[in-house]
Amino acid sequence: MHDSDDTVGSVGELGVLARITRRLPSAASALLGPGDDCAVVTAPDGRFVVTTDMMVHGPDFRWAWSSPTDVGWKAAATNLSDVAAMGARPTALLVALAVPPQTPVGVLEAIADGFAAACATLAPGCGVVGGDLSTSATATVTVTAFGDLEGRAPVLRSGARAGDQVAVAGELGVAARGLARLFAEGVDDRGEPDAERTAAFLAASPGGTDPGVERQRRPRPPVAAGVLAAQAGATAMLDLSDGLAIDAGRVARASGVTIDLDPSVVPEGPALHGGEDHGLFATFPRGSGLPAGFRRIGTVVSAAGAPGVTRGGVPVSTQGWDPYVGWDGAVG
Amino acid sequence: MHDSDDTVGSVGELGVLARITRRLPSAASALLGPGDDCAVVTAPDGRFVVTTDMMVHGPDFRWAWSSPTDVGWKAAATNLSDVAAMGARPTALLVALAVPPQTPVGVLEAIADGFAAACATLAPGCGVVGGDLSTSATATVTVTAFGDLEGRAPVLRSGARAGDQVAVAGELGVAARGLARLFAEGVDDRGEPDAERTAAFLAASPGGTDPGVERQRRPRPPVAAGVLAAQAGATAMLDLSDGLAIDAGRVARASGVTIDLDPSVVPEGPALHGGEDHGLFATFPRGSGLPAGFRRIGTVVSAAGAPGVTRGGVPVSTQGWDPYVGWDGAVG
Repeated sequence: MHDSDDTVGSVGELGVLARITRRLPSAASALLGPGDDCAVVTAPDGRFVVTTDMMVHGPDFRWAWSSPTDVGWKAAATNLSDVAAMGARPTALLVALAVPPQTPVGVLEAIADGFAAACATLAPGCGVVGGDLSTSATATVTVTAFGDLEGRAPVLRSGARAGDQVAVAGELGVAARGLARLFAEGVDDRGEPDAERTAAFLAASPGGTDPGVERQRRPRPPVAAGVLAAQAGATAMLDLSDGLAIDAGRVARASGVTIDLDPSVVPEGPALHGGEDHGLFATFPRGSGLPAGFRRIGTVVSAAGAPGVTRGGVPVSTQGWDPYVGWDGAVG
Repeated sequence: MHDSDDTVGSVGELGVLARITRRLPSAASALLGPGDDCAVVTAPDGRFVVTTDMMVHGPDFRWAWSSPTDVGWKAAATNLSDVAAMGARPTALLVALAVPPQTPVGVLEAIADGFAAACATLAPGCGVVGGDLSTSATATVTVTAFGDLEGRAPVLRSGARAGDQVAVAGELGVAARGLARLFAEGVDDRGEPDAERTAAFLAASPGGTDPGVERQRRPRPPVAAGVLAAQAGATAMLDLSDGLAIDAGRVARASGVTIDLDPSVVPEGPALHGGEDHGLFATFPRGSGLPAGFRRIGTVVSAAGAPGVTRGGVPVSTQGWDPYVGWDGAVG
């Protein structure tokens, strides 16, 4: 039995490693897993896709609103979504974790459980092949994710052409509604994130929870839809992380086109501007059938002036969250 | 011209990216570089080696002692060394950077210059294929490095056999002597790291610098020697990061052997116990010639009892630095 008062400082690096390594999912792609200077991973078609994303206590998550398991899940899910957005199948993760010395070991075990649950649910067969354990005044989780293109060309942001269908897989605006509810109801009288207030408003909600808060804590990217989109001939694709308008703007500029969204399926509000959807945005040739999971939300048109995004022909702002200007320094 | 008062908070993420991306070295292995959801990297033999290492302000570096270029160099070098220790050729890096919003953009540019200088010097052809830019109360640099085994088997820690020669490439104890000097002379009256005191003692040193401090700031791992060792039939290898005694102990335990160091070439002190050498420790079959850059420092013998490290037959402690218990919380 472990002492529940154990901290990473009292147990030490080797003790922490022993307790978290066995909770991490193994990867079918690992020729050599954790324990040496490097891992060795298969790349059957002679290439691999790779992405990295840092989650930092304060700007990216608050302990009052997310459990350690939520944080592990989200760190895995956001990276898996980036791999899917290339049309690749996720194969492996690396996890670099830094926490303050007084952090209970149970927190790191719970983060590891989040990685395991996210891999099992979102990308079966994908697992953790290595990482780094460190200490920091600011809890930080950096995940690197790998994927296999299985011989296909990667689906870039730059391939959208006039006439293409615009489609998404996954929910729009749900996570942003959850974050707004946390900022409105999950805070104390000074407006700081508060765990008790959060638990109280969720308990008072229908069913004892809130779908938006659930999605904010544990994004559900439609990972398998990324491969389906590539197989169906997607001309461009990206992960919806900063909101449909901003992310569609990225495809528009990279491709030199205008993306016109259909007002009847994309209402103003969180569906258009909310971040952290982690769905897939993709364009498909005119007339082609959309793969399972995707629904049409607009059309690619020639850029009249500068490339951009319109909704029913009316320009939409593609500005949004910037971590360097948007974070107020709070870490609750 | 850029305003030297620009901070990452005033310039924003896109502005920072534009200013640092052009300073980063490109990688010959990149099929697709920064700018999409993922990079795409070649893996010619159908595998890749990968490692990640976090450098955190406080436990891992102090701004009073290291310039931003030093920090970029060291973050690259320590990861390149891990790739070399598998017998692989480094191909690409990913860089995840988080800094406080008030950080001058020039600091990030200088960190990027450190990556470029380290790649050009230590692993020509290796470059940065992507990354992530974030904000944090604690400056943090997470590097992920990739390597190509070029069809060879990876050289693990577990392959040392009784009778093998024990050898190292690179300096022993130099970086640790530099760190000791910084802690002794580069501090203020309260013992906190101090930039002015550091500059003053270095200016008063012969040649205006100190070889140990130079090495502490900018490790020079013998990266190319890793491939040479693999080609020469190395049976085990690892990067010397925590000191010869501790790291030799890792090979001893993984291989189930005792490693006996020669007292005539490994003196007591920093050469035996100092960390951050970032040389290569390797074992080679009895009678085989050692590749360029390596010198013999001992012999692998059968483990009489528990595997471990001896020096002239006398047991040596293989305990050392633990980030969770060794950091005092200071960040100067």
